[in-house]
Amino acid sequence: MRQAAGDIAAIAIGERLPGIAVDFSHGDVDAFTPTPGSFRAFSEGVAAGGRQAYTEYRGSADLRGLVADRLAEFTGAPVSADKDLIITPGTQGALFLAMACAVSAGDKVAIVQPDYFANRKLVQFFDGEIVPVHLDYLGAGRQAGLNFEQLEAAFAAGAKVFVFSNPNNPTGAVYSEEEIRAIATLAAHHGVTVIVDQLYSRLAYPDAQYTHLRALAGEFEGLITIMGPSKTESLSGYRIGVAFGSSAIVGRMEKLQAIVSLRAAGYSQSVLRTWLREPKDWIDERIALHQAIRDELLSIFRQGSGFATRTPQAGSYLFPCVPKLAVSTADFVRLLRHQADVIVTPGSEFGPNVVESIRLNFSQNHRAAADAARRIVELSKRYQA
Amino acid sequence: MRQAAGDIAAIAIGERLPGIAVDFSHGDVDAFTPTPGSFRAFSEGVAAGGRQAYTEYRGSADLRGLVADRLAEFTGAPVSADKDLIITPGTQGALFLAMACAVSAGDKVAIVQPDYFANRKLVQFFDGEIVPVHLDYLGAGRQAGLNFEQLEAAFAAGAKVFVFSNPNNPTGAVYSEEEIRAIATLAAHHGVTVIVDQLYSRLAYPDAQYTHLRALAGEFEGLITIMGPSKTESLSGYRIGVAFGSSAIVGRMEKLQAIVSLRAAGYSQSVLRTWLREPKDWIDERIALHQAIRDELLSIFRQGSGFATRTPQAGSYLFPCVPKLAVSTADFVRLLRHQADVIVTPGSEFGPNVVESIRLNFSQNHRAAADAARRIVELSKRYQA
Repeated sequence: MRQAAGDIAAIAIGERLPGIAVDFSHGDVDAFTPTPGSFRAFSEGVAAGGRQAYTEYRGSADLRGLVADRLAEFTGAPVSADKDLIITPGTQGALFLAMACAVSAGDKVAIVQPDYFANRKLVQFFDGEIVPVHLDYLGAGRQAGLNFEQLEAAFAAGAKVFVFSNPNNPTGAVYSEEEIRAIATLAAHHGVTVIVDQLYSRLAYPDAQYTHLRALAGEFEGLITIMGPSKTESLSGYRIGVAFGSSAIVGRMEKLQAIVSLRAAGYSQSVLRTWLREPKDWIDERIALHQAIRDELLSIFRQGSGFATRTPQAGSYLFPCVPKLAVSTADFVRLLRHQADVIVTPGSEFGPNVVESIRLNFSQNHRAAADAARRIVELSKRYQA
Repeated sequence: MRQAAGDIAAIAIGERLPGIAVDFSHGDVDAFTPTPGSFRAFSEGVAAGGRQAYTEYRGSADLRGLVADRLAEFTGAPVSADKDLIITPGTQGALFLAMACAVSAGDKVAIVQPDYFANRKLVQFFDGEIVPVHLDYLGAGRQAGLNFEQLEAAFAAGAKVFVFSNPNNPTGAVYSEEEIRAIATLAAHHGVTVIVDQLYSRLAYPDAQYTHLRALAGEFEGLITIMGPSKTESLSGYRIGVAFGSSAIVGRMEKLQAIVSLRAAGYSQSVLRTWLREPKDWIDERIALHQAIRDELLSIFRQGSGFATRTPQAGSYLFPCVPKLAVSTADFVRLLRHQADVIVTPGSEFGPNVVESIRLNFSQNHRAAADAARRIVELSKRYQA
């Protein structure tokens, strides 16, 4: 919205491609609506009044009790409602607090490339030093493709913190059990704090084998896992997330939350009542519908020459490479908006090694998304190098 | 809730004082309920779907348009909806972002003593250096009592930022027009960024003359004003605030918000639709009811020997000095909880010069608050030095 059209018209070739506008930069909560019962849970929170408006800074004790048990069940390792869990303003809030508590000025922080753009920006905000670790997401088959030589070198060089998303944002790659085990072993050996963003771990397709790091971490204490109901559950408008794991870090996060935003919106916390207890057929159907969109988009991009794309094993992101064009990827992204009513996120947001890619959040109306993907392929042909 | 009872029983004298439990640490939204229409506005936000869930990081353009005009009218100076305003997760979120954008490591920051505890903690978090400025709130008559010699010395010594609340939290002192004018002049002269927290400026009693710094600031560019509907309007459970003023600072705040929490909860933003447009008799009645509680509590504390208290001109905080006791004020606060079911905030939260005071948020059920205040006075007699 704040992007000027600039002189994009000057480099545009041909007419506009007609079709329904699609904003792939985030999911469409009108296409995939919030969890059944979530609004009622919110309304009950408002009706509860003061006790729900003014929770502890780490969130309502009552809701932490419910959610801790469900998260323990989902991730396969215990969670103490009293000590190990904090409710935050979205998973972004959780990530900010966790990074603030783990990263001091001058600390080396290992981050994956590509990965969620905020990881890099948060390290910079806290004056840490980024140590990149490459993810060969296109060439690794059933592995996510993490470069363990680089990870071990980063830890050996003194990295204090490792932050990564699983499934990986933007590629949808899921780390194999072997990879997760290796991360746990290395982090424990080097005493590295690990922050794992599992925001999309519930939207796992049947072919995925998802491994929770915390289930393998054993005695390792320096681990924070981040989740939330913003994505699969379409509850982003409530801005609720959770971080759980190391009670020492959670304690520091709560102290910091008191000066960052006091608490996650009290009434919004109430929607957690429905979380991880949705009707089984509802979540199964949601996964199946996303899988159908994923498969159709993959087939469209794989027919269009040059759009190499990994099959995402979880989540709703697709991250195709853009074929060799006569315009930069940045300009192609602007042309898509200008000529095809399609908004995508440029790969440069996710790392310097993926600037020739685009990210699509395909949690959209199926038909509109497929038509928009066809316009992407069609427009690319006009600008071939 | 996380405060251990410790050995408080060992120093307790006499029986428990019976009465309805009162938590003066924050307002009681069950006694003063949210603005009429706020829940409906929220519900309409949810019904609006994606466009309300995913607003710009600085908040919905539509709502900024509404609120900017109303804030301009309320504060007496123009506000550009497009450039000068950001919607945040509560006023705490606004304060955090404003401080983050204004304070760099090593910067001197002038803060008032006493003032809101987070001001001090935020300076510490950003590795700034606190330069305290004393507020003689008990001895200044119609002035708030700011020590301008100290303020000017702080600015002359290179303070980059001045942050203060008006009305003052915890005392309810309102800065006079003369004081506000002097702050504006000094800040402009020394090029100091000013962050003024006006959270309670709407709950001004008829005897108060409230002056908005921004209305006097003229060409001075380095000013951010913070407000929100959490207090007078009892909308704290939605966690919504606003910061407005310098477009350069607001722009930086938005960039930072993108990594701190993305945005204020999209659906919650909708309650701003009702803000500053409540029925006139509703707000008048709310002020009158608070004034009645204020006056009764003042009379209770002034009858109890030694509870010197300033008459708050705005807001719902009362900040009595505790008389000389045989126990520390910290222990007296614990005894109040233990023996009288009364929770107050110790003065030490607000500055080193007011450790012998306690803060009461008197936005409570009138009768329960008055009874609790009587228990405070009664209990103090047991522990007289």
